[in-house]
Amino acid sequence: MPVPAPVLYPPFNIVRLSHVEYGVTDLAASRAFYVDTLGLQVTHEDGDSIYLRAMEERGHHCIALRQAGTACARVLGFKLYDEPDLDRAEAFFRGKGLPVDWIERPYMGRTLRTRDPFGVPLEFYVKMDRLPPIHQKYALYRGVKPLRIDHFNMFASDVDASVAFYTELGFRTTEYTEDDETGKLWAAWMHRKGGVHDVAFTNGTGPRLHHTAFWVPNPLAIIDLLDLMSTTGYVGNIERGPGRHGISNAFFLYIRDPDGHRIEIYSSDYQTVDPDLEPIRWSLTDPQRQTLWGAPAPRSWFEEGSLFEAAELVESRLTAQPIIAP
Amino acid sequence: MPVPAPVLYPPFNIVRLSHVEYGVTDLAASRAFYVDTLGLQVTHEDGDSIYLRAMEERGHHCIALRQAGTACARVLGFKLYDEPDLDRAEAFFRGKGLPVDWIERPYMGRTLRTRDPFGVPLEFYVKMDRLPPIHQKYALYRGVKPLRIDHFNMFASDVDASVAFYTELGFRTTEYTEDDETGKLWAAWMHRKGGVHDVAFTNGTGPRLHHTAFWVPNPLAIIDLLDLMSTTGYVGNIERGPGRHGISNAFFLYIRDPDGHRIEIYSSDYQTVDPDLEPIRWSLTDPQRQTLWGAPAPRSWFEEGSLFEAAELVESRLTAQPIIAP
Amino acid sequence: MPVPAPVLYPPFNIVRLSHVEYGVTDLAASRAFYVDTLGLQVTHEDGDSIYLRAMEERGHHCIALRQAGTACARVLGFKLYDEPDLDRAEAFFRGKGLPVDWIERPYMGRTLRTRDPFGVPLEFYVKMDRLPPIHQKYALYRGVKPLRIDHFNMFASDVDASVAFYTELGFRTTEYTEDDETGKLWAAWMHRKGGVHDVAFTNGTGPRLHHTAFWVPNPLAIIDLLDLMSTTGYVGNIERGPGRHGISNAFFLYIRDPDGHRIEIYSSDYQTVDPDLEPIRWSLTDPQRQTLWGAPAPRSWFEEGSLFEAAELVESRLTAQPIIAP
Amino acid sequence: MPVPAPVLYPPFNIVRLSHVEYGVTDLAASRAFYVDTLGLQVTHEDGDSIYLRAMEERGHHCIALRQAGTACARVLGFKLYDEPDLDRAEAFFRGKGLPVDWIERPYMGRTLRTRDPFGVPLEFYVKMDRLPPIHQKYALYRGVKPLRIDHFNMFASDVDASVAFYTELGFRTTEYTEDDETGKLWAAWMHRKGGVHDVAFTNGTGPRLHHTAFWVPNPLAIIDLLDLMSTTGYVGNIERGPGRHGISNAFFLYIRDPDGHRIEIYSSDYQTVDPDLEPIRWSLTDPQRQTLWGAPAPRSWFEEGSLFEAAELVESRLTAQPIIAP
Repeated sequence: MPVPAPVLYPPFNIVRLSHVEYGVTDLAASRAFYVDTLGLQVTHEDGDSIYLRAMEERGHHCIALRQAGTACARVLGFKLYDEPDLDRAEAFFRGKGLPVDWIERPYMGRTLRTRDPFGVPLEFYVKMDRLPPIHQKYALYRGVKPLRIDHFNMFASDVDASVAFYTELGFRTTEYTEDDETGKLWAAWMHRKGGVHDVAFTNGTGPRLHHTAFWVPNPLAIIDLLDLMSTTGYVGNIERGPGRHGISNAFFLYIRDPDGHRIEIYSSDYQTVDPDLEPIRWSLTDPQRQTLWGAPAPRSWFEEGSLFEAAELVESRLTAQPIIAP
Repeated sequence: MPVPAPVLYPPFNIVRLSHVEYGVTDLAASRAFYVDTLGLQVTHEDGDSIYLRAMEERGHHCIALRQAGTACARVLGFKLYDEPDLDRAEAFFRGKGLPVDWIERPYMGRTLRTRDPFGVPLEFYVKMDRLPPIHQKYALYRGVKPLRIDHFNMFASDVDASVAFYTELGFRTTEYTEDDETGKLWAAWMHRKGGVHDVAFTNGTGPRLHHTAFWVPNPLAIIDLLDLMSTTGYVGNIERGPGRHGISNAFFLYIRDPDGHRIEIYSSDYQTVDPDLEPIRWSLTDPQRQTLWGAPAPRSWFEEGSLFEAAELVESRLTAQPIIAP
Repeated sequence: MPVPAPVLYPPFNIVRLSHVEYGVTDLAASRAFYVDTLGLQVTHEDGDSIYLRAMEERGHHCIALRQAGTACARVLGFKLYDEPDLDRAEAFFRGKGLPVDWIERPYMGRTLRTRDPFGVPLEFYVKMDRLPPIHQKYALYRGVKPLRIDHFNMFASDVDASVAFYTELGFRTTEYTEDDETGKLWAAWMHRKGGVHDVAFTNGTGPRLHHTAFWVPNPLAIIDLLDLMSTTGYVGNIERGPGRHGISNAFFLYIRDPDGHRIEIYSSDYQTVDPDLEPIRWSLTDPQRQTLWGAPAPRSWFEEGSLFEAAELVESRLTAQPIIAP
Repeated sequence: MPVPAPVLYPPFNIVRLSHVEYGVTDLAASRAFYVDTLGLQVTHEDGDSIYLRAMEERGHHCIALRQAGTACARVLGFKLYDEPDLDRAEAFFRGKGLPVDWIERPYMGRTLRTRDPFGVPLEFYVKMDRLPPIHQKYALYRGVKPLRIDHFNMFASDVDASVAFYTELGFRTTEYTEDDETGKLWAAWMHRKGGVHDVAFTNGTGPRLHHTAFWVPNPLAIIDLLDLMSTTGYVGNIERGPGRHGISNAFFLYIRDPDGHRIEIYSSDYQTVDPDLEPIRWSLTDPQRQTLWGAPAPRSWFEEGSLFEAAELVESRLTAQPIIAP
C-alpha cells in the first residue's frame, strides 16, 4: 500500500483545521460573495479586512479576507489541543530546518508561524477569541447555511512527499487515488478531526491552494445556493457540480469567488475516528472516484488554484492524466 | 408573439396525458430498469408485456412495455373527460383527414386510435380499469419513488406547426423558446392538466419521442436514484443532470433505459390552471433556459430519440443551434 | 356512499380558489408574521391594508389584510374561467334566492359578491391584475418559501349540506370522513384545480373559516419555518405538527397568526384531475386520518376558527367526537 | 457552573461509544424491527442472536440482539485507542474498587468487562473484526438509512455524580440542564468522538438505559421512516417526534422496539472537537430545551427505560419536574 501507516502518537496534537486568510482584490465584491451569497457571518470588518465565521463556529473566524493588490492565499491555520503542543510544534518544525516565528495575530493567543517543507504557509494556535453560539439563531441563516469550515485541498507537486510529511504530523489518510502504473499517489485525503479530511492533496504544480470547503446541512442547501447564484449574477462562478463524490461520499458543489479562489460546498461524508480505519483506494482511471454519478470534472478544476504568498512553484513530474470533461 | 392564443373551448376535452407503450428488445432488462431501479409497480405481466403504474396512479397503467424486435415508441395515450368527448375527437380527426379507428385495448374502455398530422400515433379513451390506491403503502416505495407520469416531449421538424395543432386541441402554451433571428419556435411546453406541460415539442428530425417524464416528490429522491444507478451498473445510463431547468423551474434528471428510451425524472414545476396565464419566452441563445445553473446539455440529448412506429421522419429546416456541451 | 356523485357539467366554471381577505387588529404585527416570517411578497400596502402574493402566483394577491376593530374573515375569493361564467354564476345564486351584487374591487375586473346558503361570503371574478413572474427570483425567497395559496377549510354545522351545495357548484370530493354510526359526513375535501382540495368542510359551529393553506416545495421548508418561528418569538403560534396527514397524504404544519387566524403550511398531496377519481373514505374513529403517524390534534384545532363577517353561527347537531390530544 | 472542567489528559483514551447488547424476548420480531424497518445490516445471525451494523460502520457490529427470557440492556461497549489503553483502563477501574474481568467476546479482541460506580455494565476493547465498506452500496439502503450508532442516554439517580465520573474518564460536557432552585444537574450530554454526545444522563430511577441513538443523513430519512412505520403496523411504536431538540440542535424521532427498548433516530448535531468548547446551559423550566418548537415530551419518555442486567436501581432524590405533555 502506498499510504504510510498512521502515527498514533504524533509530535504535537492538532485538533482541526481552523481558518484561511485570503488576499482579495475587491473587498466589497468579496463581501457580496461570502456574506450576502454564501451566508457567512461577519465578526469584524474595517477598511481593509473582513473576518467571518460559519453558523456553528464559536471561534472568532474561519476566513479572513484582506484587501490586496494580488489575489492569493496567505496562510492556513490549525488549532492545537493545549499550550505545550505549541512548543512541541515549534521544536518539531525547527528540527526540520523550517522557518518558525511567534507572531501577533488579532483575536488569537500565542501563534506559531511556519511553512511546511513544500512552502505552504501555516500557523498554529491554541486560543482564539470565543463568541456566543449562534447556531440556533435561525433568523441569521442565509445562502447555503454554512455550518463550519471543513477542509483545505492543496495542489502538491509530489503527493507522496506531502502525505509522508502530514502523516508525521498525525494526519490519517482516509482515501487516496493511485496511479496504477507507477504506484504513485495522485491524491490523498487526511484527517485529524474525525471526518474524511482536514487536508487533501491533489497532483499538480504546487504548492497552491485548490480549495477551502464549508460543511452544509444537506443537499437542499446546495440546491438553494445554485438557484440563488444563478439568478443574482453568479452563474459564471459555478464551476462543477452538484454531485456525489466517489471519494468521501459527500454531496458537493464547487464555486469560484470574485478573485477565482475556489470554495467547495460539502455535505455528509462519514465518521473516521477509529484509528484503525482502513484507507480506501481508488484508481486514477476510475471516473466514479471524482463523481460517483460519472460526470468528469472540467479542465479548470484540475489546473487552476490560488497561489500561496511567497511560495515557490514546482511542477509535478507525474505524467498520468485524470479523465477531464471534453 | 409567436405562440397562438389558447383555445378556451376546444373541440373535445382532454384531461391529461395518460400512458405510453414502448417496444423493448429485452423485457427482463427493461423490468430491471423500470421496476427494480425506478420503482414503478407492476400491474400485469406475462411472457411479452409488462404494465406499470406509478405510486399515486389509480388507472391501470402509465407504461406498457412490449417485447419487440426493434425498440420504438408505439403510441401516446390521453385520457378524455367524458364519453361524448370520444365521439367529438373522432369527428375532429376525421375532419382533418387523419386516420381514425376504434380499437380494443386491454384494461381500457372505448379507445380511439389516430395520428396527429405529423405522424405521432395517439390513442384516446375515457375509462381505464381503476386500481385501489397504493400511495400510502409506503412499504412499496422503491427507487426514485415515482408518483405519476408527468409529460411527453417530442422532436418536431416544425415546432410552429405542432404548436398550432395542439393549441387547436386545447393545449395551452406555458413556456417557449424562440429563435431570435427568424422568430420561429425552437421548442414549446403545453399543458392540459394544470402543470407546465402534458406535451412539449423540441426542434429536430421528427416525429420522434424525446422522453417520457415521471413526477417525483423532491430532489432528494433524484439524488437517491443517482446513487443507486451509479452503484448497480447503470452509471452509463445517466445522460444529463441533475439540475434545475430554467424552463419549467423543475429539478430534473435524464436517464436512458436499456433500449435508449429516454426517461426524465421531474420534480416541482408550478401550477398553470389560470386560462390567462402568460407564456414565458426564452431565447435560444440563453443557456439558463436549459439549465438555470448554466450547464449545457450533451449532444446526445439534442440528437437522440425514440422512433414512433410507422412514422415517416422529416428533418427540421431550422439552422439555429442550441448551446451544446463541448 | 354518503358523497354525492360529481357534477360533470356544472352551472359555471370555477378555476380555483383565489384569495382571502382577513380583518386584522394590528397591521404591523400581521406584516411581521406574513411577510417577514412566512415570506409572502407585498404587492401593495398603504395605511390600512396589505396585499400579498406567494412566489409562484402572477395574480395580484392571494391575501388581503385589512386593519379592523375585530379579527374576522371577510370574504373567500374564487377565479372563474371566462366572462360568461360570471353571468352564469349570478343567475345561479340569484336562482337560489341568495344575495348577489356586482362590486368594485381594487386590482380586479368584474366581481360578483354573494354568499353560500350557510352564510359564507364569496366573491367571483375572471380577471385580476397580472404581475411579472418572480418564481425564479430566488433572492426574494424567505421564510417557508410559500409557492401558492392551496385551499380553504371551513367549519360547517351540516357538512352533508355543504358538500351537496359545493358539489352542485362543480367541486369534486376527493376524501371524506364519515361518522360510522349515523352515516353522516364529519368532514370532506373538494377540489376544482386538480389537487386534493380547493375547499374543505369540518364539522363544528359554522360557518367559520378553519384555515387557509399555502403550498410549499417540500418538508424541509416547513422545518426551516419551525426553526425560525421557535427562535423569533413565535413558538406560541405553532399549533399542530409537523406531520403527515392520513387524508390528502400531505406533509403539514398549522400555525396561528397574531389574531389567531389559522394558516396551514402544506406540501405534496396528489393529482386529482381524473373526473372518475374515487373518493377515499375515512372513519371518524381512525386516528391516522388526522395524522398518519398517530398523533391526535389538540382541542384548539377542533374548536377555534375565524368568524366570517356578518355570518350567523349555527351549532352542529352531530354528537360524535374525534380523538383529541389529552 | 455546575459542570466540572474537562480533563484534558484522561487516564485512558476512549475513542467512541461502540455497541450495545440487548436481551430481546422475540428475536424474529426484533429482526423485523431492526432489519426490515430501520434498515440495519445483519453481519451475523444464528438461532439466538443477531449482530447488526449501520451503513457507514466497518466494525462488525453496533447492536447485538440476544434471545432472552426478559428484555434488558446487557452491556454498553466502547472502543479504546490503543492496546495500552486497555491496561490503563483495567488499572483505573480496579483502583476505584470496581469489578474488572478480561472476557472472551466474539468478533472482538482483548475485552475488559467492568461496571461504572452506579452499576452500568461496560466493556472496552481496541480491536473488533473489520468488514468491507458498504456505505456506497446504495442498493442495501433501507428504512431510515441508519449511518452509525451515535450515543447512549441513561437514567441516572444522581446526574452530578455520573457527570463527575465520566468527566474523569475524559468525556467532555457539551450541554446540560440545571434545576434552577437547587443548582443540581438534571441532565447532561458528554462526548468523546466530536459530536454533542457519546453518553448522556437524565435524572430518574437509575441506572437504566433511556435510549440508543442512530445517526441518519437528514430529516427526510426520518419522515420516510414515520411513513413506513405508520403503514406497516408500527404506528404504536412511535413515541415522540419528529422535532428539533433545543439541546444538541438535532432533528430527532423516538421509537420503541418490540420489547420497549427506546431507539432515537438522530440527525445533524454539531462539531465539538475544540477542547475549550463552552458547555451550553439550559434551565429545566425552559420547554424549548426538549423540543425547540415547544412540544413537550410524553410521560412515558420521562419514566420508561431498559433495565441493565443485574444493576440495582436507585431512585432520584430530585423533586423538580420537567414539563410533561398533558
